[in-house]
Amino acid sequence: MELVVYLAGQIHDDWREQFRNKIKEKGFPIQTVGPQENHDRSDEIGELIKGTQPNAIYRDEAASQMNNLRTTVLMNKADVVVALFGSKYKQWNTAMDAATAIQMGKPVILVRSEEFHHALKELSNKSQVVVETLDQAVEALAYILE
Amino acid sequence: MELVVYLAGQIHDDWREQFRNKIKEKGFPIQTVGPQENHDRSDEIGELIKGTQPNAIYRDEAASQMNNLRTTVLMNKADVVVALFGSKYKQWNTAMDAATAIQMGKPVILVRSEEFHHALKELSNKSQVVVETLDQAVEALAYILE
Amino acid sequence: MELVVYLAGQIHDDWREQFRNKIKEKGFPIQTVGPQENHDRSDEIGELIKGTQPNAIYRDEAASQMNNLRTTVLMNKADVVVALFGSKYKQWNTAMDAATAIQMGKPVILVRSEEFHHALKELSNKSQVVVETLDQAVEALAYILE
Amino acid sequence: MELVVYLAGQIHDDWREQFRNKIKEKGFPIQTVGPQENHDRSDEIGELIKGTQPNAIYRDEAASQMNNLRTTVLMNKADVVVALFGSKYKQWNTAMDAATAIQMGKPVILVRSEEFHHALKELSNKSQVVVETLDQAVEALAYILE
Amino acid sequence: MELVVYLAGQIHDDWREQFRNKIKEKGFPIQTVGPQENHDRSDEIGELIKGTQPNAIYRDEAASQMNNLRTTVLMNKADVVVALFGSKYKQWNTAMDAATAIQMGKPVILVRSEEFHHALKELSNKSQVVVETLDQAVEALAYILE
Amino acid sequence: MELVVYLAGQIHDDWREQFRNKIKEKGFPIQTVGPQENHDRSDEIGELIKGTQPNAIYRDEAASQMNNLRTTVLMNKADVVVALFGSKYKQWNTAMDAATAIQMGKPVILVRSEEFHHALKELSNKSQVVVETLDQAVEALAYILE
Amino acid sequence: MELVVYLAGQIHDDWREQFRNKIKEKGFPIQTVGPQENHDRSDEIGELIKGTQPNAIYRDEAASQMNNLRTTVLMNKADVVVALFGSKYKQWNTAMDAATAIQMGKPVILVRSEEFHHALKELSNKSQVVVETLDQAVEALAYILE
Amino acid sequence: MELVVYLAGQIHDDWREQFRNKIKEKGFPIQTVGPQENHDRSDEIGELIKGTQPNAIYRDEAASQMNNLRTTVLMNKADVVVALFGSKYKQWNTAMDAATAIQMGKPVILVRSEEFHHALKELSNKSQVVVETLDQAVEALAYILE
Repeated sequence: MELVVYLAGQIHDDWREQFRNKIKEKGFPIQTVGPQENHDRSDEIGELIKGTQPNAIYRDEAASQMNNLRTTVLMNKADVVVALFGSKYKQWNTAMDAATAIQMGKPVILVRSEEFHHALKELSNKSQVVVETLDQAVEALAYILE
Repeated sequence: MELVVYLAGQIHDDWREQFRNKIKEKGFPIQTVGPQENHDRSDEIGELIKGTQPNAIYRDEAASQMNNLRTTVLMNKADVVVALFGSKYKQWNTAMDAATAIQMGKPVILVRSEEFHHALKELSNKSQVVVETLDQAVEALAYILE
Repeated sequence: MELVVYLAGQIHDDWREQFRNKIKEKGFPIQTVGPQENHDRSDEIGELIKGTQPNAIYRDEAASQMNNLRTTVLMNKADVVVALFGSKYKQWNTAMDAATAIQMGKPVILVRSEEFHHALKELSNKSQVVVETLDQAVEALAYILE
Repeated sequence: MELVVYLAGQIHDDWREQFRNKIKEKGFPIQTVGPQENHDRSDEIGELIKGTQPNAIYRDEAASQMNNLRTTVLMNKADVVVALFGSKYKQWNTAMDAATAIQMGKPVILVRSEEFHHALKELSNKSQVVVETLDQAVEALAYILE
Repeated sequence: MELVVYLAGQIHDDWREQFRNKIKEKGFPIQTVGPQENHDRSDEIGELIKGTQPNAIYRDEAASQMNNLRTTVLMNKADVVVALFGSKYKQWNTAMDAATAIQMGKPVILVRSEEFHHALKELSNKSQVVVETLDQAVEALAYILE
Repeated sequence: MELVVYLAGQIHDDWREQFRNKIKEKGFPIQTVGPQENHDRSDEIGELIKGTQPNAIYRDEAASQMNNLRTTVLMNKADVVVALFGSKYKQWNTAMDAATAIQMGKPVILVRSEEFHHALKELSNKSQVVVETLDQAVEALAYILE
Repeated sequence: MELVVYLAGQIHDDWREQFRNKIKEKGFPIQTVGPQENHDRSDEIGELIKGTQPNAIYRDEAASQMNNLRTTVLMNKADVVVALFGSKYKQWNTAMDAATAIQMGKPVILVRSEEFHHALKELSNKSQVVVETLDQAVEALAYILE
Repeated sequence: MELVVYLAGQIHDDWREQFRNKIKEKGFPIQTVGPQENHDRSDEIGELIKGTQPNAIYRDEAASQMNNLRTTVLMNKADVVVALFGSKYKQWNTAMDAATAIQMGKPVILVRSEEFHHALKELSNKSQVVVETLDQAVEALAYILE
């Protein structure tokens, strides 16, 4: 049995790559999907495809058409979502992806340091699992496959 | 024809009260619903009902049970959602409420200053309407009722 | 028993007003809803609310945010849809509204002259009723209420 | 990961064949589906299977039974839809397919020249991506697979 | 609390009128809906609205457009369905209405003499209640309202 | 705004009557619904309506047709469910009602003494609110209406 | 692309076997599913598994548990349904299967001689394709795969 | 055709292992899934992953996050559910799993000794098949695959 896991979270560092390495080491039958991980490409993709836009707001709108196309298709294929919250960035996309998954009936493993418990309390309550590290998230996924 | 409008956003000031006043002035057949607006009560409601909890994290979890009970029931009754983003607070609840509404097929009017366009770009793209002020949100709602 | 009927079709003449008059004459318990009927307002509403846009394409996008907000909320409340096709205008909105309603399980009464049968053949096949005049559409609605 | 892409649009030229060639050149794991591409066969299939019909309207109805059977089954299997609009033909089927996909939660990549922006404004606003050429549509699909 | 009860069954006698009388005698807050009860009108309604059709098959198709428009809208408003089977007529509409309701999550009270148990065994198994008389069906409905 | 609250739980004592009294004292706009509260009637209703059954198992099956008819219709109308667990009885109906509500997207307020925490742990985790007394459940409901 | 086709209809002769032979001859990637085709086994399966039942009605109920288990699981896996109506037998199961499929969004190819057009008119109107022979049904399926 | 069968029931003995052996002996194309079968691990998994919790109630909550993550993902992949009830343990999880499956449209084969018929009567009525032994459940599954 294979699982498709959608990795929601900021795209400013390579945490997904590290996550995939952990999965590979353990030989789990898990395929990961998620948003574009190259931050610059994620910001530019709208203009790369549609051409220069009038200003920053429209540049963002064009990029979001592409980003949401990608994440919608991939989220539709996911069995479970891991949503990572950290100290940097607004992370409204992360909250959006987590809430969308929950409303679709796909369980969410929310990963956050305890220091963020307050601002994440409602989203945590709606999530299926709340842990503090990606290693714990991997353990939770492993538990599904036992 | 009456509309039920869910007001998503931070609960640290009385913006919803102002919004309701605008609605009342114009005599619109709109009922507003939303999360608990008294921030302290929102934080304490878990312990107020369930008793003292072991620590801050569990206090938040207990409060979230109550807050999500309220917002789930009220969101289910809503026709449209207004989601206000500002410069303060994490606002992960706001993003969560907006994304939940969108996934449920309820259109979202997202209100944000242009300065936040970048962090909100994907959520804005999924929202039905994006404006900068609550007055514009009221005009958008009025347009439904014309 | 009251019915909410969504009137899909071009907004360049007052056919909906005539339709409502027929309904009123017969004293049917029918409430009609639909897109903005004032064509200029429909085109301008985006800029009226959000301010001047960079060009015609963005003006249209802004207007569509408002128009789709309105039609989505009102379509959600509808029991049945009447979709009028004529010889003028692209009428892609009409086809969009009809198909959306059908996918939502709301039956569609498609009104078209026989001269358009070919281009409308697949949409007609998906519609519940196909007639040639609005008077026939009113008779079909009346049949529900008998 | 493979994608099933439904190609909505007029069936009077071989644009889908060109599209498939682009996909093949790039070696993307994409399977395309869509309506019958042979226009004459699409018009005749009702009578070919069910025999001669009383007149043109019934011939179209018979053909539409078969065409909608095909497109419904194939649309159900699609992950994403590309909807091409051009200057010729009514294209009400294209609008119907796009709106159906959107209501089913399948994102739509709408392809149209800017000259059609006005008549397509509401459908464009509901579509996930709006571009002007099929090459751009291919790039958008490629972005999902990166 | 009011209930809307859809009465599925043949339209060749006045069993629905008798049913409504029983409901009225008992003063239950029940509104009944269902197909057109005048059999001739049910057969003719297509031609009455759309004009003479080429032959009997098309006459039936035109009538069915109207009949299904009516029953779809009314079934959508129903809380529960009573489906009456008897010794006469094919009653494929009755089976169709019952199965549609079940698939929609609306419970069905199936009324049939024991002599028909065999041909109705699978539909009976899917129905929520199986009784032999309309009086028993009324008792079952009354039990909801106690 | 009125709420419909489904009261799930054993039917061997009058806890629902007490609950309704609390609601009435506080003047809340809450209508309560639930299974048949007269235990003997709940067991006998199958035979009362359908006549004597071959044995106890069939008597139970007949009664369950009626009981599930009632609870399905009423659950469909509910906004929220209160599920009471106690020390007596199997309470598989209570667990069934709670899980059904959760799957339907209706939040559940689970009421149980801490002594039952272990056997109820998974159902508690899926419930929106977990409290120990009906008074706390009333407070949680009141919080929705504030 | 493979299709799963559910064959609804009476189980008193081997029409499904003939259908499968046609499919095989043409080498179509079609898998057929459907109810138990051995009529005696279909009637006896309840008692074969659960033991002797009190009377014919309970024997039928026990069999229907098994038959509906089978057809529900297999219908869930189907892409399209072929429903065959003939001159013999009540065929309420056939109507039930067809209506269930339609409500699930799975298109139905209804096969019936013109002599049955009247009793089948409403179900025909809801079906996607109406033909008179299984050969025509095969052609319709082939059209999906072209 | 392969079936995924979810095995709901207590996790205090190896009944699932026996069930899988029966399946294997018969060479059925059935994959079984279900909750964690090692009872101690099921109770401890929360603390094993998230660390020591303040008390037994929170230990259970942490474990349930993991257990429900597992069962939700696996239930989503199931075609049919076998729910075993016995004389020991509360089995509220079993009732919860069965009711969840039923609400999701996945048929349930309920296995229980006749001695429990009364407390299980409503859940039995909602289940598709009711038998007394796991061998009978295997026969029912086999019947799907014939």
